[in-house]
Amino acid sequence: MDDEVIDKTAPEEDGYGLDNRTVSAILLAVAAGDAARLADLFEPLHPADIADLLEQVDAGKRREILLLAPRQFDGEVLSELDETLREEVIAFLPPEILAEAVRELESDDVVDLIEDLEKPQQDAILDALEMVDRVAVEQALSYPEYSAGRLMQREVVRAPEHWTVGETIDHLRANKKTLPDQFYHVIVVDPGIRPVGYVTLGKLLSSRRSVRLTDLFEDSFRPIPVTQPDSEVAYAFNQYHLISAPVVDDAGRLVGVITIDDAMNVLDEEHEEDILRLAGVGEGSLNDRVIETTRQRFPWLFVNLLTAIVASLVIAQFEDAIAQVVALAVLMPIIASMGGNAGTQSLTVAVRALATKDLTGSNVWRVVRREVAVGLVNGAIFALVMGLVGLVWFGSAQLGAVIAVAMVVNLSVAALAGILVPVTLDKLGVDPALASGTFVTTVTDVVGFFAFLGLASVVLL
Amino acid sequence: MDDEVIDKTAPEEDGYGLDNRTVSAILLAVAAGDAARLADLFEPLHPADIADLLEQVDAGKRREILLLAPRQFDGEVLSELDETLREEVIAFLPPEILAEAVRELESDDVVDLIEDLEKPQQDAILDALEMVDRVAVEQALSYPEYSAGRLMQREVVRAPEHWTVGETIDHLRANKKTLPDQFYHVIVVDPGIRPVGYVTLGKLLSSRRSVRLTDLFEDSFRPIPVTQPDSEVAYAFNQYHLISAPVVDDAGRLVGVITIDDAMNVLDEEHEEDILRLAGVGEGSLNDRVIETTRQRFPWLFVNLLTAIVASLVIAQFEDAIAQVVALAVLMPIIASMGGNAGTQSLTVAVRALATKDLTGSNVWRVVRREVAVGLVNGAIFALVMGLVGLVWFGSAQLGAVIAVAMVVNLSVAALAGILVPVTLDKLGVDPALASGTFVTTVTDVVGFFAFLGLASVVLL
Repeated sequence: MDDEVIDKTAPEEDGYGLDNRTVSAILLAVAAGDAARLADLFEPLHPADIADLLEQVDAGKRREILLLAPRQFDGEVLSELDETLREEVIAFLPPEILAEAVRELESDDVVDLIEDLEKPQQDAILDALEMVDRVAVEQALSYPEYSAGRLMQREVVRAPEHWTVGETIDHLRANKKTLPDQFYHVIVVDPGIRPVGYVTLGKLLSSRRSVRLTDLFEDSFRPIPVTQPDSEVAYAFNQYHLISAPVVDDAGRLVGVITIDDAMNVLDEEHEEDILRLAGVGEGSLNDRVIETTRQRFPWLFVNLLTAIVASLVIAQFEDAIAQVVALAVLMPIIASMGGNAGTQSLTVAVRALATKDLTGSNVWRVVRREVAVGLVNGAIFALVMGLVGLVWFGSAQLGAVIAVAMVVNLSVAALAGILVPVTLDKLGVDPALASGTFVTTVTDVVGFFAFLGLASVVLL
Repeated sequence: MDDEVIDKTAPEEDGYGLDNRTVSAILLAVAAGDAARLADLFEPLHPADIADLLEQVDAGKRREILLLAPRQFDGEVLSELDETLREEVIAFLPPEILAEAVRELESDDVVDLIEDLEKPQQDAILDALEMVDRVAVEQALSYPEYSAGRLMQREVVRAPEHWTVGETIDHLRANKKTLPDQFYHVIVVDPGIRPVGYVTLGKLLSSRRSVRLTDLFEDSFRPIPVTQPDSEVAYAFNQYHLISAPVVDDAGRLVGVITIDDAMNVLDEEHEEDILRLAGVGEGSLNDRVIETTRQRFPWLFVNLLTAIVASLVIAQFEDAIAQVVALAVLMPIIASMGGNAGTQSLTVAVRALATKDLTGSNVWRVVRREVAVGLVNGAIFALVMGLVGLVWFGSAQLGAVIAVAMVVNLSVAALAGILVPVTLDKLGVDPALASGTFVTTVTDVVGFFAFLGLASVVLL
């Protein structure tokens, strides 16, 4: 089947996202080379949906769409587009359309748009900007990647401490041309342009003109250092329910503002990263080329191969036992997979708890005790189950006893490794989501096989 | 070691979250029964941090803290608290403090606070509310769980179509007492109270008093049906960068408003759920009691045991082969773990792509082809590696060839199952994050062992 295939049975997405009917209509218009029809179909779509469409079709279709309806691809669509596709799409757009597209964007969106591009493409876009915007963008790019400085928008609405509500409103009306599209607070600054507090627009609107801004300050006010990692920024927005926060340089001067939608994006990407890393997938976008994806996944599989070989070496020590009691070979996968699963359960909970800062130095030991207790209880239950399986299946009470004991050892060790490995990696400054899995499964395989086969050769031979 | 242990080496959290120094100071004050000192230490903390503290200590410590400083636990702390702890904490608070605590909350926070409580505790809190709030909360509870109706706040700021900026500002000033703490748009409604558009506060502030609201409407305006699942609401906020959205009933009448911070919470919980489910952890809060956690994880381990037994049954078919060539038993874990890992890689990417709607009926077949191609390429590479390992380690070219072929088969099938299983489950309305893992590993184990041992008994015996 080919890319145009539309699945009529797929549930409609409650009016959100692209429904399959629209996609098929668009693909038909493209196939027919009907530019007018294509424009009509794009017209009602949100930029984010147009971007999704481009991500869902293959490179050939993308090219056709871009050639048929270049005007559709304004700055918003470009900034919604998956990084892996931006270079490709931008390379296709006529320079004048690209220039027009980026001029309408806020500085933070332009930064987000170009920070991952190749130098020549970056310059092409920078040249398209008016000087003032260009300076803003280049300034932002001077901050470290994944820092608040990259995330913030430089268009800020600020007022001096002595202003009243009336003066502020008059100022806003007088400067409406230069106001950002979206802003939620007026940031009050001292003569050194250091933020001292902020006022919500709701308070401004509902207070009498004579009220002083300083009497309307919000408790939620939290300046963010421009060099702070964006993950910390996202944490702060989520933890303290911030809507916008002023960004300050080392001298405490106001250099920009971060709004919740930017923070929401970061949080989204962080989660994505955690999930993919836990699964041993480096990046993993559906748009990467096969060779690219293979390259991303290979290293993880290779590390896994090495650990699997370690497990095999353990088994190799017990070849005689296996040769005499083949049932051992039959039961080995159960040991491995139970240990691996129990370990994954513990380590996933631990990785999440570390990410959300629910697991800290003050409760780590209680959590360890708790996990081990859980491992022991489950281990005991499955020891019983497997003991019976061993007895019934192979008619050997001894074999049943061996696998039962091995199960308790295995699940307890799995629980212990599942918590200690990520916590240790976190202390060492390694992302626990990235490396925990391999370590934990290696531990559970080695310990599991050793306990099972070792016990077996003592008891059964 | 016990709970008071503080790890001085843990990195400071850039001033966010609880730093260990504060935690230890608080625990010392509790141990000393020093209520005044405890109050001083709590004073600068954000409610979210106080909630985190309660989550990090054990039940005994929590009790002591609550008895020493009950006044600290206002409504905000309660609504920040992990669901698993709310009942316990609320049960401890003196009724009058609890009543005072909930009265200051917005209706959506009260709903979030009590929806998971036992009936008696719910009633206790409802009784504490003023009649109008109580009606609002009971109304919200009448909507299905996880629906927009539960998420929205009923305090809305609305204006009739014919109003001007001036009239609206005057209205806001006249009613400032009843305005919600946070609001970002004035929702314009027709005479039937059906929302027809909204105006950002920024536009209101920066426009002249004579301008009509209808001339300031935002494109982003998207009413949300009150019965819509909260996951769809979160998707819409994230996809379309909404800050707030009006909620309408079946007749299109305005019944409330959802703000981005609520949507951000839902998105956060959805991600959490995905990660935990992928790992076969039902709920998994660090605060659950051991028995509770054991109960959550047991079913997944049990299902895994059954699938592992299926794999064992496959192996049992080849006991003779293994008895004659014990090397097979030594190499089996490599087959199993490579297949399992490759499958997990594919299925995780697929599960995420389904969640973000990047994987749809219009591109599923291209993605399948892509994944299989990746599986084949990686399979070929590892076939070579393992072929050599088999040859070198066991000095048998035939054994090397067998495991090489098995590796290609295994990784290709893993890739195929990794994408088809979640897509199929999604179609059937089952959460792919929940069940994919078990199915995929069963497929890879069974196919892997069958291919490896089957080939072996044909080639080697």
